[in-house]
Amino acid sequence: MAERRRKFWGWGYEDQGPNAEQQKHMAERMAKRFGLDGFEITPPPTEAELNLRAPRVAVPDALKDICSTSTYDRAGHSYGKSFRDGVRAFERNYPNPFDIVAFPRDEKGLVRVLEWCDSAKLAASPYGGGSSVVGGVEPPSRGDYRGAVSIDLLHLDKVLEVDRASRAARIQGGVLGPALEDQLRPHGYTLRHYPQSFEFSSLGGWIATRSGGHYATLYTHIDDFVEALRVVTPRGIVESRRLPGSGAGPSPDRMFIGSEGTLGIITEAWMRLQDRPTFRAGASIPFRSFIKAAEAVRQISQAGLYPANCRVLDEGEALNAGAGDGSESVLVLAFESADHPLEPWMKRALECVADHGGKIPDDAGKTRTDKEATHEGAAGAWRNAFLNAPYLRDTVIGMGMVSDTFETAITWDRFAEFHRQLMEKAREVVARVCGKGTVTCRFTHAYPDGPAPYYTVLAPGKKGSQVQQWDEIKAAVSDLLIKLGGTITHHHAVGRDHRPWYDRQRPDGFATALKAAKKALDPQGILNPGVLIDPD
Amino acid sequence: MAERRRKFWGWGYEDQGPNAEQQKHMAERMAKRFGLDGFEITPPPTEAELNLRAPRVAVPDALKDICSTSTYDRAGHSYGKSFRDGVRAFERNYPNPFDIVAFPRDEKGLVRVLEWCDSAKLAASPYGGGSSVVGGVEPPSRGDYRGAVSIDLLHLDKVLEVDRASRAARIQGGVLGPALEDQLRPHGYTLRHYPQSFEFSSLGGWIATRSGGHYATLYTHIDDFVEALRVVTPRGIVESRRLPGSGAGPSPDRMFIGSEGTLGIITEAWMRLQDRPTFRAGASIPFRSFIKAAEAVRQISQAGLYPANCRVLDEGEALNAGAGDGSESVLVLAFESADHPLEPWMKRALECVADHGGKIPDDAGKTRTDKEATHEGAAGAWRNAFLNAPYLRDTVIGMGMVSDTFETAITWDRFAEFHRQLMEKAREVVARVCGKGTVTCRFTHAYPDGPAPYYTVLAPGKKGSQVQQWDEIKAAVSDLLIKLGGTITHHHAVGRDHRPWYDRQRPDGFATALKAAKKALDPQGILNPGVLIDPD
Repeated sequence: MAERRRKFWGWGYEDQGPNAEQQKHMAERMAKRFGLDGFEITPPPTEAELNLRAPRVAVPDALKDICSTSTYDRAGHSYGKSFRDGVRAFERNYPNPFDIVAFPRDEKGLVRVLEWCDSAKLAASPYGGGSSVVGGVEPPSRGDYRGAVSIDLLHLDKVLEVDRASRAARIQGGVLGPALEDQLRPHGYTLRHYPQSFEFSSLGGWIATRSGGHYATLYTHIDDFVEALRVVTPRGIVESRRLPGSGAGPSPDRMFIGSEGTLGIITEAWMRLQDRPTFRAGASIPFRSFIKAAEAVRQISQAGLYPANCRVLDEGEALNAGAGDGSESVLVLAFESADHPLEPWMKRALECVADHGGKIPDDAGKTRTDKEATHEGAAGAWRNAFLNAPYLRDTVIGMGMVSDTFETAITWDRFAEFHRQLMEKAREVVARVCGKGTVTCRFTHAYPDGPAPYYTVLAPGKKGSQVQQWDEIKAAVSDLLIKLGGTITHHHAVGRDHRPWYDRQRPDGFATALKAAKKALDPQGILNPGVLIDPD
Repeated sequence: MAERRRKFWGWGYEDQGPNAEQQKHMAERMAKRFGLDGFEITPPPTEAELNLRAPRVAVPDALKDICSTSTYDRAGHSYGKSFRDGVRAFERNYPNPFDIVAFPRDEKGLVRVLEWCDSAKLAASPYGGGSSVVGGVEPPSRGDYRGAVSIDLLHLDKVLEVDRASRAARIQGGVLGPALEDQLRPHGYTLRHYPQSFEFSSLGGWIATRSGGHYATLYTHIDDFVEALRVVTPRGIVESRRLPGSGAGPSPDRMFIGSEGTLGIITEAWMRLQDRPTFRAGASIPFRSFIKAAEAVRQISQAGLYPANCRVLDEGEALNAGAGDGSESVLVLAFESADHPLEPWMKRALECVADHGGKIPDDAGKTRTDKEATHEGAAGAWRNAFLNAPYLRDTVIGMGMVSDTFETAITWDRFAEFHRQLMEKAREVVARVCGKGTVTCRFTHAYPDGPAPYYTVLAPGKKGSQVQQWDEIKAAVSDLLIKLGGTITHHHAVGRDHRPWYDRQRPDGFATALKAAKKALDPQGILNPGVLIDPD
């Protein structure tokens, strides 16, 4: 049987995504929405259309069996899955591809690849699922590297050990979301970490980028699920102890969590698991105003109730997701448990909702134990739209649209004004750059001290200028959100794309310390150069 | 009015602690307990008895108004509050005192002191409440420092700003627990972080040492309450952004949290607050066996209920705390909320308790809204014993006893065997070193993946040899717990006393990175030398 291949230029497997008729339908709908005549849909690139630069370095004989120089592998690993990446792929624009893609079969193989890169002064970029939307997996565009190697961890895809008493498992870093859950399911466990990239992102990638997952409150980032790490660095392997909690010095794990491949490559992690939930209670609650819904979220977040879902969609997002008619915001609220029915939790949360004018549906909040509970109604519609979005985006790119997101977090005291200014700025710059377009917002996560708002831009672009158009929009909103005190990313990571703003956000003294730490672990600066920090 | 002074040699103010009659009573009880004839109680030292080495360095004129070289200040700052510290104080043994104690009035003053230390190559040790039990505040015993300065942050004791919407406050690092709560109370808030040292420990100290607080589950360490930090280092001030959550690189705060004064001195923090709880539900539940109680804690910890208290006392601890008759373990279970009554939470937790044979009292679990709820019954007895313990310890030291603790954390799969071996080893070495004595255990905190057990040793010692006796016991149990996979400290920090074991526990690669980070922020290695890491 021929191996199912992933698209080198976009999201999913080659047999997935909208067909020609669906694409036509999408284009018609989009044209109508923006009052345009129609779109010419550029087809995705083929390998034959690419004429990649010849590899600048030869694979040593000892590594030949785990390295590839094929166009498919090189092109597929040279971009992540951001809008910029998609546009560049559709433009057949691959001026700086990786020279070699390595597929080590195990940690030993990875160490050999890294030793080679270190001795030959080659940039080495770890690759998990390749779903970076911030330029986190591409080769460096600067520096005196003799070549660039992408290290794909796809063979490190096993759950190695399950500890039932502690509800934890030792898992290899390269495993993708579905394969991870498949291996945990027979034990009755789940990691329950579902970023939008779930299908094509890896455990090691989630940890390296502080991925944001399923839980809208409490356990938002992957960080808290990490019990211990094993990391390969150019100066040896770093392995932390399995501990439920510790106060012995700064956390070793927290230095690697979020290091984006610049300090080492995560080969294994002991992860805290969840029992598979059997009780669910949920409701989708319309609100007249986004800000009122946000106030309800604030109250719920500060009440110590810890809902699994507590996401607000603004009017436009609700409409796009099929969860509203475009006149109201929607709060998607849900509790889950493997241990107990959820009526008291839901009842109290709905009281908070009522305090802020949410219109509580009659059927809200009853605990359900059937598996369909997460797949129905407005919440289900939102979930499907959420997981489908990356598939549709490639078509939107082929149509010449500008379609991307920016996301942040801010404390509650500043939120309303922050949001107002960001929306105003985003709409202004979208109108200026694209003529028209929409900007919508949802909360992805909520904390007692503030929300994580997530903004989506959709606008008709100009083929050949899509990247520049988006870059102009992105720069304007990023300048503003950094000025107003937000973070340049709540859960998309820094990569290369966020560097100018991260460099402003990050305290200088911490940059100094982080650079020194990098220099100690990666003296040649070969690991993912250009991402996060520059070696001195 | 004369200023109320703290004892330079022990816990509390000079007017606090057991009087002569109470001490006599304690000694009689202790003699009976261990079958001894009685104790001669050594009186605490007086300033006149000490003959401190003359300061090795002179205070510059510009700093004279904020520096002291008095015997009281120098002796009082040269030790923390561990058993070793107390014994050395009672022995009038101060061979290596600080040369100078600085009391900067504000951050600017602190910067001036640090600049002086850096230029004159003086060791600089931050001092908050001075409650370290791991040798974290004393002067270095090695290194080519020209002198040693203790920097006491007592004047940095204000809540500077309260953000009601986000439920957070900007607070100075030197504020002690009671003054902090006094300033938050009028706003209806509390930090609700009550380590045993609460009365004489500071916010900055809690953060620098990853202090363990009130909550037995979920928010155990101070770490999660830190929203942003401001830290003075020899290479400038590092200030992080106020963010409810972020995924922009490794957390800057997490590098300083647990750095124990070796990377910088925390002058301010934005802290996440709690509403003052108004609902409480609690129960003290006897169990036939400690291990059975532990199993109940495991189930509760994995159920997503998040009790504020979930502490098991073994038979001996329960007896000592007046919470049992010595034949049974006791689980102290409590829920608290400022938002909602707690019956459903408590009901489900009690079901877990019943699953493991806990004997549920008739009055268990009713939600109370009166302020006395935390002060009654076995839970109240335990609470009082907990807060009183440090006052009594000085008397025990004067009697020549050996009285100290060790604490750790371990995953559930290893806990039962780990605990069995540790108890066996501790009892064996206590018997060998002291002839007789008791070892008891409680859980201070519990996680889904494991508990934090805390062991207390009480044994008749030999005056003149108490420190060596304890050191021998401590080394034996520490060797074992590190060998069996525990952490050398769950919440007491590393300091100097835990260094030999921390150095084994800490991954080498992380040590390399941390040293490099320190070198970058503190090139001369003046900050708290000997604690946590050695400069290269």
